[in-house]
Amino acid sequence: MALSRNVNRPDLSATLPAMKDYAETTIRVRYAETDQMGVVYHGNYFTWFEVGRVELCRQLGFEYKRMEIEDDSIIVVAEASCRYKRPARFDDLLIVRTRLTQSQRRTLRFAYDIIDQQSNQLIATGETTHVICDHEGRPKSLPEKYRKYFARNGDTMPTNESD
Amino acid sequence: MALSRNVNRPDLSATLPAMKDYAETTIRVRYAETDQMGVVYHGNYFTWFEVGRVELCRQLGFEYKRMEIEDDSIIVVAEASCRYKRPARFDDLLIVRTRLTQSQRRTLRFAYDIIDQQSNQLIATGETTHVICDHEGRPKSLPEKYRKYFARNGDTMPTNESD
Amino acid sequence: MALSRNVNRPDLSATLPAMKDYAETTIRVRYAETDQMGVVYHGNYFTWFEVGRVELCRQLGFEYKRMEIEDDSIIVVAEASCRYKRPARFDDLLIVRTRLTQSQRRTLRFAYDIIDQQSNQLIATGETTHVICDHEGRPKSLPEKYRKYFARNGDTMPTNESD
Amino acid sequence: MALSRNVNRPDLSATLPAMKDYAETTIRVRYAETDQMGVVYHGNYFTWFEVGRVELCRQLGFEYKRMEIEDDSIIVVAEASCRYKRPARFDDLLIVRTRLTQSQRRTLRFAYDIIDQQSNQLIATGETTHVICDHEGRPKSLPEKYRKYFARNGDTMPTNESD
Repeated sequence: MALSRNVNRPDLSATLPAMKDYAETTIRVRYAETDQMGVVYHGNYFTWFEVGRVELCRQLGFEYKRMEIEDDSIIVVAEASCRYKRPARFDDLLIVRTRLTQSQRRTLRFAYDIIDQQSNQLIATGETTHVICDHEGRPKSLPEKYRKYFARNGDTMPTNESD
Repeated sequence: MALSRNVNRPDLSATLPAMKDYAETTIRVRYAETDQMGVVYHGNYFTWFEVGRVELCRQLGFEYKRMEIEDDSIIVVAEASCRYKRPARFDDLLIVRTRLTQSQRRTLRFAYDIIDQQSNQLIATGETTHVICDHEGRPKSLPEKYRKYFARNGDTMPTNESD
Repeated sequence: MALSRNVNRPDLSATLPAMKDYAETTIRVRYAETDQMGVVYHGNYFTWFEVGRVELCRQLGFEYKRMEIEDDSIIVVAEASCRYKRPARFDDLLIVRTRLTQSQRRTLRFAYDIIDQQSNQLIATGETTHVICDHEGRPKSLPEKYRKYFARNGDTMPTNESD
Repeated sequence: MALSRNVNRPDLSATLPAMKDYAETTIRVRYAETDQMGVVYHGNYFTWFEVGRVELCRQLGFEYKRMEIEDDSIIVVAEASCRYKRPARFDDLLIVRTRLTQSQRRTLRFAYDIIDQQSNQLIATGETTHVICDHEGRPKSLPEKYRKYFARNGDTMPTNESD
């Protein structure tokens, strides 16, 4: 697990070692995730991206499940894409590297790298774009309390606008 | 599709040909459902059983989705089992034959046959046991209006008991 | 099901009604395909696209499974993307409309529309790009016998080049 | 991870604390694994059992993937069952506890407990029965070299019989 961000401590950034702005989590390929080609079925990568997002949230400082339950804010997928570079196989250990690439009051964008832990080779890359919605699917602004987590370096979300 | 039951027309049953007490629906095996063994991953059969139950409900005369939404009654799975006889393969057409094997006020039991449409060979058999619950997972009795659908021949559910 | 192409009968095209260059197949949303948001999990759309491709092949005149088995030619996914317009829900009947958008000797590209059958509303659109590979994952040219199926109107694949 | 077996060191067994004869691995519930009931879809438990078996093999001393590749021996599922005690929810950390309950030359049987890590409550129990097959699905005996791994206490598999 690796995540540290200099958003709230800009005065330290000059003296700190290079900051990582991504989260990493490891998954092991399940037999169920393979197909008769002998490799992982391509649709399963989107589930891994989701695992990466959830871990990014945890490492940013909050649990995504609470955001849904306590704040009626769901990060709905509006677009998703994946480029497959090399096949992943049963029992491979894969690193899911997730980073926030864009954050606005109503939309978020993430990028992903899937990396083979043993060979360090890139297996796939992907992107997802999201809209914040309530539990009935109506778009809403990201609640105030979560904005600090999603503010990127030098790119703080406006908080004093009316929604 | 084949389902006809003599529950509501007992006066005809003597003159009708043998009644079928099961529902049939056909599914085609998806690539995503195979695994690296080159056959269908065993866990996917439980999804097919679910497809069979939903079609059985439709053929019994109601839509299961409405039972959840309009009557806050969910048919929760309490037990599930499957015996695998022959492998199913990508693009096979399979018949899911579903029948109600037990119905009580709070529990239902279904049995399933998965049959290869081309060879007519039995691929798998299964059983599921269910408890009726509300959306918060609390057990409840099957609402009155659904009892007629789940009453089996000569085995009508008692309806005048207090729940 | 709707597919008809004028590739092999250009002399008729002037007199025929407008040709459809896509295949349609219908799927019903499974309970297993929903998530706790109450709608279909976004990753499942890629499985539906795969169902659409397989039906497109069938309607073009061949069975994709035979292409893998008999001709050692696998249509491997290199890129996949989806844009989600409206949620799909349990038990919805959806039309998967699939068309070939690009075909070259070693690559194919498909586009997809997911349409709600009842409302005729667009649920999602997608695209996939593919590379033809043998069973060991090595890129190869599409075998001669399949080129006619993937040739698009006025855009026949070259067949007399060396691979 | 917890596995220790006294098979190869019977002289120590009297002096050691009670031996564990099971493997444990932890999984975190994925969003993709939930359904619209707000809990894990029941079919996914069979994937978790598979994860448990693979980890049991690793903890017994071999990698299951090598058994398939190097020894053409696949542990095919012949029967599977699950009893659901309590719902599992998104982001829950679950312990999959797997143990070998029967081993014969051509069949293996495993039992599983799914336990909520936080509450220590039992979520589900299950069983699977397996037949050893080659890659064409023909039953075969477990290769000699794997018998020691699957021999249970005082219940060594016969190895000098002809297959």
